[in-house]
Amino acid sequence: MRIQRKEMGGEMLFGVDIGGSHIRVGRVVAERVVQRTEKAVGKSPDTVAQQIASTLAELGASGTVHLGIGCAGRICPQTGKVLFSPNLGWRDVDLAAEVERATQKTGLQLLVTMENDVNAAVWGEFRCGAGKGKRNIAAVFVGTGIGGGLVIEGKLVRGASGGGAEVGHAPFAAGGARCVCGRRGCFEAYAGGWAVEAHYEKMTGKRLKASEIWTRRREDPSAAKVWRQAIEALAHLLLTLSAIVDVEMVVLGGGIVERCEGLADEVASAYRDLVGDGWRAADVAVAKLTRDATLVGAALLAL
Amino acid sequence: MRIQRKEMGGEMLFGVDIGGSHIRVGRVVAERVVQRTEKAVGKSPDTVAQQIASTLAELGASGTVHLGIGCAGRICPQTGKVLFSPNLGWRDVDLAAEVERATQKTGLQLLVTMENDVNAAVWGEFRCGAGKGKRNIAAVFVGTGIGGGLVIEGKLVRGASGGGAEVGHAPFAAGGARCVCGRRGCFEAYAGGWAVEAHYEKMTGKRLKASEIWTRRREDPSAAKVWRQAIEALAHLLLTLSAIVDVEMVVLGGGIVERCEGLADEVASAYRDLVGDGWRAADVAVAKLTRDATLVGAALLAL
Repeated sequence: MRIQRKEMGGEMLFGVDIGGSHIRVGRVVAERVVQRTEKAVGKSPDTVAQQIASTLAELGASGTVHLGIGCAGRICPQTGKVLFSPNLGWRDVDLAAEVERATQKTGLQLLVTMENDVNAAVWGEFRCGAGKGKRNIAAVFVGTGIGGGLVIEGKLVRGASGGGAEVGHAPFAAGGARCVCGRRGCFEAYAGGWAVEAHYEKMTGKRLKASEIWTRRREDPSAAKVWRQAIEALAHLLLTLSAIVDVEMVVLGGGIVERCEGLADEVASAYRDLVGDGWRAADVAVAKLTRDATLVGAALLAL
Repeated sequence: MRIQRKEMGGEMLFGVDIGGSHIRVGRVVAERVVQRTEKAVGKSPDTVAQQIASTLAELGASGTVHLGIGCAGRICPQTGKVLFSPNLGWRDVDLAAEVERATQKTGLQLLVTMENDVNAAVWGEFRCGAGKGKRNIAAVFVGTGIGGGLVIEGKLVRGASGGGAEVGHAPFAAGGARCVCGRRGCFEAYAGGWAVEAHYEKMTGKRLKASEIWTRRREDPSAAKVWRQAIEALAHLLLTLSAIVDVEMVVLGGGIVERCEGLADEVASAYRDLVGDGWRAADVAVAKLTRDATLVGAALLAL
């Protein structure tokens, strides 16, 4: 314990991951989560701030605390306010101020940093996950939707409006499948978990999870077809990212990549085929931090 | 003259643009080209270095000279060497060293900076062209091919291997038209000048310039169709760029955009339709520096 405190210069580092359903809080030492809690996330910013404050106390926070919060939604790059979070139903929320208020009587010296949850996860993979040691990476997280982001020359790309990289909503097929975002032909409309499930249901009338469809793909032609299309879309997304920003590595992660064994390899192989001869393909790696990525990334952004 | 020299702190600034056929050298004062020359480009690095040296003398270079060279091809971000320039037929050329050698006896204090020509042009538009005052822009230059690049948080994105952004070779249509790069379905294979001309020739048997096809599009259904497809591709390229990097502005330029009146407006309008409601569209602007972009951008990178 003394050594850890010495490493941190007598200061403590915590990360928070606020998603649509969960809130995870963890203490981070030497780029690892050494203690963590997970709870159902409260509805109001006030409740969430209370959850964070009480968890910090449970985890023994004291003295100067650097707190990085990764939160679903659009975060203002200047003020750190949550501009809009559809998942949480928040608009213009100054969560950092709420957390400071909730911890006022604890005597903690709190330094709060806010970041979009996907950006924080990209940063986690860059600093101490699959992208460790690189300067230029892209990350693609495939879950229900597709998120991702970019680190260029060692800097997180936040974009002009704080939404981060909307890699899932770049176009794959002009005028193609309707996406949840209202547009047509987005990568997500072919390779997001919801899209794989919807395409399969349309073909078979059966509602299965994307990972179950993956498991059936050898004996079920509809499952094979739906996933072939999703892999083609993901390979093209990797090609888009590497053509536009010439990254050294693309990190593939997210719940679907974790649950569908062999998917990352098939995407990487299809991507390399697309790149073709005479071009340098980016390395493709699987995310290492999985569910801790946002928590760790947010914590490291707070330092 | 005295005032100019004072502005520059007694130093002079020159830019060079080396393309496949031309070499332009110009003196830049207060972000403007005040004197310039244009010649057919020499074959060997040695000849080109001599051309630069003699032009510097013609333009009255003296004292400390900051020289920015924008050169077609892949430039090593570390050493500034021309790694490979297909247009010039060069491999592993240290042009900066050649220019220093060629000017050795002139008494000039020469400080040379090398940059890819398209990157330099993007930088020119960012610093003193259409993107002046922004922090995040993308540029798309449509000529025979499609080039472009990115400035993020005020920094030029060079990418991991010095090729810059290959925006023209990001995918538009999976498995689509064959591109000169060897891949299929690239944006350039639908909207580059060569592609517009090839598609039109395939439909009509006639070989016309892309700008001539543009002029005929009201009375010639094939011309209309080819350009409709090209505009759709360009609008999707803008959507790709804004989805992935969330830039404030996309600058449209290049010979084809300059010669085809109204093209930029049609691309911008098609792009805004694609973005749809509830999303912020990037501003679309027409490049201002036209043929001086590389020269000016290279010069400003040398400061």
